[in-house]
Amino acid sequence: MTSSSLPPLRLGIAGLGTVGAELLRMLQTKADFLAQRTGRRIEIAAVCARDRNKDRGVDLSAAKWFSDPTDMAKSADIDAFVELIGGADGDAKTSVEAALARGLKVITANKALLADHGLALAKLADENDTTILFEAAVAGGIPVIKALREQLAANDVTRIYGILNGTCNYILTRMEKEGISFDDCLADAQALGYAEADPTFDIEGYDAAHKLALLTSIAFGTEPASAEIEVDGITKITATDMSAAAELGYRIRLLGFAMRGEGGVIQRVHPTMVPVNSAIASIDGVTNAVAIEGDYIGATVLQGPGAGGKATASAVAGDVVDLARGTEIPTFGVSASTLIPFERAEPRPDARFYLRLHVTDKAGVFAAIAGHMADNSISLESIVQRQRRDEPDDAKMIILITHGTTRDAIDTSIAAIAKDGYLVSDPQMIRIEHF
Amino acid sequence: MTSSSLPPLRLGIAGLGTVGAELLRMLQTKADFLAQRTGRRIEIAAVCARDRNKDRGVDLSAAKWFSDPTDMAKSADIDAFVELIGGADGDAKTSVEAALARGLKVITANKALLADHGLALAKLADENDTTILFEAAVAGGIPVIKALREQLAANDVTRIYGILNGTCNYILTRMEKEGISFDDCLADAQALGYAEADPTFDIEGYDAAHKLALLTSIAFGTEPASAEIEVDGITKITATDMSAAAELGYRIRLLGFAMRGEGGVIQRVHPTMVPVNSAIASIDGVTNAVAIEGDYIGATVLQGPGAGGKATASAVAGDVVDLARGTEIPTFGVSASTLIPFERAEPRPDARFYLRLHVTDKAGVFAAIAGHMADNSISLESIVQRQRRDEPDDAKMIILITHGTTRDAIDTSIAAIAKDGYLVSDPQMIRIEHF
Repeated sequence: MTSSSLPPLRLGIAGLGTVGAELLRMLQTKADFLAQRTGRRIEIAAVCARDRNKDRGVDLSAAKWFSDPTDMAKSADIDAFVELIGGADGDAKTSVEAALARGLKVITANKALLADHGLALAKLADENDTTILFEAAVAGGIPVIKALREQLAANDVTRIYGILNGTCNYILTRMEKEGISFDDCLADAQALGYAEADPTFDIEGYDAAHKLALLTSIAFGTEPASAEIEVDGITKITATDMSAAAELGYRIRLLGFAMRGEGGVIQRVHPTMVPVNSAIASIDGVTNAVAIEGDYIGATVLQGPGAGGKATASAVAGDVVDLARGTEIPTFGVSASTLIPFERAEPRPDARFYLRLHVTDKAGVFAAIAGHMADNSISLESIVQRQRRDEPDDAKMIILITHGTTRDAIDTSIAAIAKDGYLVSDPQMIRIEHF
Repeated sequence: MTSSSLPPLRLGIAGLGTVGAELLRMLQTKADFLAQRTGRRIEIAAVCARDRNKDRGVDLSAAKWFSDPTDMAKSADIDAFVELIGGADGDAKTSVEAALARGLKVITANKALLADHGLALAKLADENDTTILFEAAVAGGIPVIKALREQLAANDVTRIYGILNGTCNYILTRMEKEGISFDDCLADAQALGYAEADPTFDIEGYDAAHKLALLTSIAFGTEPASAEIEVDGITKITATDMSAAAELGYRIRLLGFAMRGEGGVIQRVHPTMVPVNSAIASIDGVTNAVAIEGDYIGATVLQGPGAGGKATASAVAGDVVDLARGTEIPTFGVSASTLIPFERAEPRPDARFYLRLHVTDKAGVFAAIAGHMADNSISLESIVQRQRRDEPDDAKMIILITHGTTRDAIDTSIAAIAKDGYLVSDPQMIRIEHF
């Protein structure tokens, strides 16, 4: 089982950015440690990156150098192809396809690739008697793919939710603790390297949606379907929403949710008000957390670093250890041909919402708002009306908390309220969840 | 990889108590689901329990019945032996040894067995080209063994700590929230089934120590050594300690710690004051949590149900899924012959302590206490002296918080203080930890 007579596991690593360079250093400095833990040597047989001359602090003289990842995937003398290039298409896709077609194992940190092309790639892996490992693609170093695909595999998952994007959580946490604006927090996050120069992908929720699509697929045995996710980002959250949430006993977190519903599965990514004393509300900064609820496990929450070179390298290296030990599980936990097409569940009428409406202070405004809510069968749990010091006397802020309703009903009533012409700024709507 | 032509995985299950009965029901009701996830049928080929006639809500007509577990381990037509008997010795040990000697895979929820005999059993498994899976033995349904043994295996673990006993955490949480005494909480826990009729094993910290010994072994590659753990239970925690902790910004949790130190590894189980805003302080009731710190992962915290029939069955079934898929990893993550003998590290002089001393109110008492602390090079961070309303005017409570010192220095000074004859009740000492 740990016979040292096993041949080395030969890796080809494509993409030597932050994660790739950390992985190389880790595999070299820990070569003996990993050989002891896995019973085999891990050999960096081939590498591929654009700039061959860059100093990455590792000796690559024993590795064959490739400038084209697909060329490496097709011709290098390797057992496993490690894709750290990134991007849903282009070189990442072409090279992974080539590696799978040859029967190589594939390890990737690429959530976009798998969210968009996961089904086809998993089928290609099955056809060639191989598999794709992607612990690093979801929630960085947190071992959530392994937990879900393996240790909790006997559970019928009922719901999975979590903080899947560290950039958003960093921004929301700072807004909450320091009372500063979204734009200022984003600028700080960019200066500190927690947000990209073009942050759209993170702050609009698409990155979290890609990760959620992969979790959903493993948890519910459905084909990955990120295009079916209802996605709202955090760009419209204001300091007013933060302070209102605090007064109401909530914090605001960007959460991804997947749960079983009538006729299918519900998948959503959106800012969420969560009770201040819930486990998920205590997750601050760039930390990620994933809660998995199942029929036997009850609920388990895994938290840890959601990004960063070292934590991501830890996840990739965990997958390397699996391969070296001979562990092999289908990409999404089951044969790809048995994944069922994703079906959206009927929205449940039990969603509670926070609504913030900034309106002109005229007689009849509140009656009009209340009328539109009633027209859409929305009943109200609480109403707070405020005058903000920094605004003219003829404007006021109305904060409503609804009883259980649907997102459609909320959208319809907000559209009707907007049409009346009383709103002086964009209305805000945030879901409330209790755990 | 998921070929349905694979033969069924034949299980022999010994011990049909709460967990065993849950497992049987799960395997029967989920037979098709598990076959789809693993590519093989899971067959309950043999069972063993004392009472054959008890109704367990499952059809066992297809299983061969054994009244002796060792007989089953030796002669049943099975691939894997599932030991749910319990106890460090007796039938559990004898039957597991017989199963391993025959080359059967073993799944067990038995922390005492592995803490006491883990090294010999792991060697026996290696010799017979088999392994022992024991996710259910530590922290119930939380997938911590898998995380540590597999996904985080490329990390040098620097520290692992956690809430490993739900009974203690339930009692401490209720004492804290409701201000009631240890004895009343224990009685309630017994009435609710959260504590055994003889609760010694839980409340004195031995159960947590067994679990810690197994985590230590995987994390640090050392032979399991539960006898080397410094263990303090929770029986001496009072309502006064709870309220003092709250005033100082702490909560009290029974934690197990294992960390690398000078010349070896430190292992301890003891009540601990943890900052009220730390992740570990937010773990309430029977929930368990384990934090793993490593050179690449940074820190990850896994929390969930630490006990209960269903959660434990989930963990056992996760191990069954691994076996059905052909995953096979040595018992403690590496070949047992490469585990290094456990060496206690030198205690570090950076431990901070809370001391509560209930003394007679005479002139010179405080000077004497301060003198003993100084004799042992203990400097004090803060001193609080209180008069309790319910006690005579000639007694007072002194609460001290020390700067960094050692447990030995604390024990020596407490002994000296006790010898002076001023103490009117047992002194209290609780470690403080920051994360």
